[in-house]
Amino acid sequence: MADLRGGIDLGGTKIQTVVVEANGTLRGEARQPTPTAGGPADVARAMEDALREAAAAAAARPDELRGVGVGSPGDANGDTGVVSGARNLPGWDGSFALGDELSRALGTPVRIGNDVQVAVEGEYALGAGKGSNSLLGVWWGTGVGGGIVLDGKPWLGRGAAGEIGHMVVKRNGARCPCGRRGCMEAYAGRAAMEARARDEHEKGTKTDLFKIMEKRGKDRLTSSVWEHALREGDALTESLLRRAVRYLGTGIASACNLLDVETVVIGGGLGVRFGDRFMDHLATEMHKHLFVADPPMMKVAELGDLGGAIGASLLVRD
Amino acid sequence: MADLRGGIDLGGTKIQTVVVEANGTLRGEARQPTPTAGGPADVARAMEDALREAAAAAAARPDELRGVGVGSPGDANGDTGVVSGARNLPGWDGSFALGDELSRALGTPVRIGNDVQVAVEGEYALGAGKGSNSLLGVWWGTGVGGGIVLDGKPWLGRGAAGEIGHMVVKRNGARCPCGRRGCMEAYAGRAAMEARARDEHEKGTKTDLFKIMEKRGKDRLTSSVWEHALREGDALTESLLRRAVRYLGTGIASACNLLDVETVVIGGGLGVRFGDRFMDHLATEMHKHLFVADPPMMKVAELGDLGGAIGASLLVRD
Repeated sequence: MADLRGGIDLGGTKIQTVVVEANGTLRGEARQPTPTAGGPADVARAMEDALREAAAAAAARPDELRGVGVGSPGDANGDTGVVSGARNLPGWDGSFALGDELSRALGTPVRIGNDVQVAVEGEYALGAGKGSNSLLGVWWGTGVGGGIVLDGKPWLGRGAAGEIGHMVVKRNGARCPCGRRGCMEAYAGRAAMEARARDEHEKGTKTDLFKIMEKRGKDRLTSSVWEHALREGDALTESLLRRAVRYLGTGIASACNLLDVETVVIGGGLGVRFGDRFMDHLATEMHKHLFVADPPMMKVAELGDLGGAIGASLLVRD
Repeated sequence: MADLRGGIDLGGTKIQTVVVEANGTLRGEARQPTPTAGGPADVARAMEDALREAAAAAAARPDELRGVGVGSPGDANGDTGVVSGARNLPGWDGSFALGDELSRALGTPVRIGNDVQVAVEGEYALGAGKGSNSLLGVWWGTGVGGGIVLDGKPWLGRGAAGEIGHMVVKRNGARCPCGRRGCMEAYAGRAAMEARARDEHEKGTKTDLFKIMEKRGKDRLTSSVWEHALREGDALTESLLRRAVRYLGTGIASACNLLDVETVVIGGGLGVRFGDRFMDHLATEMHKHLFVADPPMMKVAELGDLGGAIGASLLVRD
């Protein structure tokens, strides 16, 4: 029996699971939609199912795995395995002992971490950050999350570090989904971009964004909707993406002036789709504000859609 | 003979030296004005004189010291002892082997560090940061410098970390003395505040700032000029200081969202003078933008005017 580990990336729309070898080599994977009704116990059951499926694909039983790591949204406590305030999951405003619940169901130790932080650590260990001494991960998706690795070790602060999306890039600026003003996420997050697109559309700006959304059977502007609209040359799409990149550049430059990291990795749903295409634009915007003489290396996340789950598998201790 | 060490804080207006015991206990100190003409060699000679004077006050000869540490402006290379581009010192646009020069003159090893970083490390080891696991130092003076201690160790990045004054708090905002736009220093640095005061004064805003400056025989608005004007109830002074504090709060909150440090220490010429008085205002401004649930402890630097020199003495290796 090989030394196999499980990884689960718990997202607001899907649950992605993997079974990998210790070095990250993929042996099986599975995906399920995240339940939209019920509560934490229902979400945990869907996670269990998806992990069992990935294990089956790897010809293993869950209780044969050395352990399972979970990247979770909300406030994920790595010591207790409790996840609190995961507000994009159904009925999860309070606390739920996700680690214990899954461990009992799967018959193997389960460790919990922050979703973005484990994805960044995955890129550090196995992907775009390999070989760097220090790394800032910028996860550009519905929100803008971040993760930090300094001198080869994750920097979590008192547990809440990495919130680059809530660095202020414009004092008294736009209202952020978090309620504060001028955060980078208020300009660059997918949710904020969608709100802006709706405003512009209602004010009469021509755009195919919402037509494409409906045609693809979505109820919001997913990353793939943005990608299709961009490919079709939709002007509002291009302009809102370029605006997002300007603010990303400003915020990332600020973070680099503070931390002087060697490498910046752009990940997340929008980051992986648009990182390469907008990298020159991003670098140009950053350089307007970079105080450090030596710009960081800029890379797009390499582990793709499975990166979050593979990163989570690294939580499993040898 | 006690185990004595020297420390030199090389500033744009004065050279402060100390001789201390290993635990930071002061045994002697001296101060000299920084030469305003000549070149690096002249500055080094003034540093040597001031250190000899501090040693004499401690009843020691320089060559009896275990070593001397220097906190230097510009690009201070700790490995080579070379200081480059110290533009607020006379004729110091290029590079000068300050460490070697002083070591030869004083007959003891000399180590060079960044002025703000050594002051922050001094507060961490012996002052306001004592007992913290992680600390952000914000040095509010002519510019706004910073220093970071994470998990008990200084974080220097690739050598240029800590530039909190050049985090962007307002994209497309005010021009900073560094030439970029919207940096925190463009609003909060003493030099930027002075430029703004001159503008307002020329536009007809009533203020006693420049009268006080002349009466005190200064050619610029030093920290003490600001302090006197504030004490006399000068409205422009109060308004520009409060404006500076607003932007400091925004930038510090941004840094805390990224790093989630335990403690923030406010130092520097303006920080030490005004930190206590404006601490509530600063906290209020920070809390508007703090994403982390647990605010950091806020403290004013405790080592006072000698903090930079005492911090520099910690560069001396046992």
